[in-house]
Amino acid sequence: MNQDIKKQMEDHLASLTKPLGSLGDLEDMALKLSCIQEKVPPRVRKKATYVFAADHGITEEGVSMFPKDVTRQMVLNFIGGGAAINALADHCGYDVKVVDAGVDCKPFEDPRIISKKAGMGTANFARQEAMTAEQVDACLENGKLLAQSAIEVGYNIVALGDMGIGNTSSAAAICLAAGLTDNIIDRGTGIDDEKLENKRKIIEKAVASHAPYNGAKDILRKVGGFELATMAGFILGLKGSGIACVIDGFPVTSGAYMAYLLDNTVAEYLFAGHKSKVSGHIAILNAMGLSPIVDFNMRLGEGTGAVIGGFIVDLASKFSCNMATFAEAAVSTSTGDEDNY
Amino acid sequence: MNQDIKKQMEDHLASLTKPLGSLGDLEDMALKLSCIQEKVPPRVRKKATYVFAADHGITEEGVSMFPKDVTRQMVLNFIGGGAAINALADHCGYDVKVVDAGVDCKPFEDPRIISKKAGMGTANFARQEAMTAEQVDACLENGKLLAQSAIEVGYNIVALGDMGIGNTSSAAAICLAAGLTDNIIDRGTGIDDEKLENKRKIIEKAVASHAPYNGAKDILRKVGGFELATMAGFILGLKGSGIACVIDGFPVTSGAYMAYLLDNTVAEYLFAGHKSKVSGHIAILNAMGLSPIVDFNMRLGEGTGAVIGGFIVDLASKFSCNMATFAEAAVSTSTGDEDNY
Repeated sequence: MNQDIKKQMEDHLASLTKPLGSLGDLEDMALKLSCIQEKVPPRVRKKATYVFAADHGITEEGVSMFPKDVTRQMVLNFIGGGAAINALADHCGYDVKVVDAGVDCKPFEDPRIISKKAGMGTANFARQEAMTAEQVDACLENGKLLAQSAIEVGYNIVALGDMGIGNTSSAAAICLAAGLTDNIIDRGTGIDDEKLENKRKIIEKAVASHAPYNGAKDILRKVGGFELATMAGFILGLKGSGIACVIDGFPVTSGAYMAYLLDNTVAEYLFAGHKSKVSGHIAILNAMGLSPIVDFNMRLGEGTGAVIGGFIVDLASKFSCNMATFAEAAVSTSTGDEDNY
Repeated sequence: MNQDIKKQMEDHLASLTKPLGSLGDLEDMALKLSCIQEKVPPRVRKKATYVFAADHGITEEGVSMFPKDVTRQMVLNFIGGGAAINALADHCGYDVKVVDAGVDCKPFEDPRIISKKAGMGTANFARQEAMTAEQVDACLENGKLLAQSAIEVGYNIVALGDMGIGNTSSAAAICLAAGLTDNIIDRGTGIDDEKLENKRKIIEKAVASHAPYNGAKDILRKVGGFELATMAGFILGLKGSGIACVIDGFPVTSGAYMAYLLDNTVAEYLFAGHKSKVSGHIAILNAMGLSPIVDFNMRLGEGTGAVIGGFIVDLASKFSCNMATFAEAAVSTSTGDEDNY
């Protein structure tokens, strides 16, 4: 972190017409964004959400209640503008980018769907390795290429989303393989005790069967998902760009954690958009030292929590850019002590 | 609450392309808004924030660290567009309405400042009653007239804000007088133990000196503030209009509590925009059965927390209006049980 920028931004925040520190977390976000951009005050002009979609062989084990074809159907729904992420992204001022990182269908014909297909869904990691080492590398490289295009377009904030039937199982598996064991396998919302026990047994057994693990790339290869690996590459590719990256719920955060294991400094430009209702989510955020911006008990994915959190980061930039200083507005400062107005 | 509308809206939410209930609190907000508007789905086209400003005689006792003239200066800052509320309201899509409910200065000449002046600041309630019974009635009536104009303009969401040096003291006093005693007098952020003890003694002694209290109007007369009473009238005046009203931090919520004491049903169209860092705030929200939408450790006032919370309510209306149904998007539903995608 650039300490000069940090100090300049702290001074700037103190000059604005409000009691010192009274915008709380918004001030912390503005400060972090300033350090990411190395600008005082930071500016946000363009935002995009990238939704990474892929399929998961683990669905063969009956861990998900939606049929696998919903992944493909929802990709078309994103392009049609009818999904939750479309409604939220539109109102929060984001472009929506949809990435096929490995959906189990032939390539989409619609040019609006960005094709970064590493395969037709992963293999079933309960029976074999999820992907090849070449596929891991391809996903990471695809992610980096996408990051490069985000940089070229000039986005200031990118919010990451996921779509993949079965991906909470892959996300749980990569977390377990990485040593995060705190309540990582969740019942979701509708699964009864019996089904939760079954899901837990399948994932724990599979993760144990592939041990030992040799770092994030090995974890992704054995139990990961194409969209999770592509996101990891995307996050790594943003390094040094000045772009703030807002992560979403359990699957996206597990992908971000793989990027974090490959390079801890990514946390410097990550924001945690929200706290998901999925129990394991907060453990991963804690492991990266990130605090969620909002908590609305959401568990939808697609980037829905990320776009909300990113809107708040944008809002933080706006107050820091647009407020008058005490001097400009001819407002008296505190007589020494501070108080709420 | 209209049970038919509630059931229709629940069915509508269940038809949208996402796992049932997966948008968590956003779905609850959309449902409440639907009941307020009696429309399925609810629509939000216009939002405004009303910032009510007034002065407080209690500042003579040295309870506030900013000079009293800051109230007037900040009203001009609101009109100049340089305050925090301007930056936040602009980005969140609100018109900003500034109301002089009783600032201690001659009437403002700028026609953009809505003049509803009940006096030149209240009297010092540590020594006498804060206002006359006629002033209480004038404030409540002024608030109702403002609500009527908000209805005529066609606002769907109004967010309430406050500006008044010393108003956390008046707000604490009306809460104490109403029997809310849970941590109501806060140190704010910078006041040391000695000054907090002084503030506590002044307010508690003053509140005791005016006892007993005979309802909200009597409380407002003895220890209230012009802006707090005007807000209460505004909230009461929104009843039956279909407008959702988002409240802010400690002062606004204390004003809303007076409206609530006069008519408990106001809670049906109130949203708590945020949880303030001021300790007494949550106790008032609890007393009205309201849960804060966000918690950013803010303590600025002006409606800054309300406009953020109201943006989220607006967002809830947007997903409920704009998402495709499973049938429209040809997306398969869950095979019985639900799960995260």
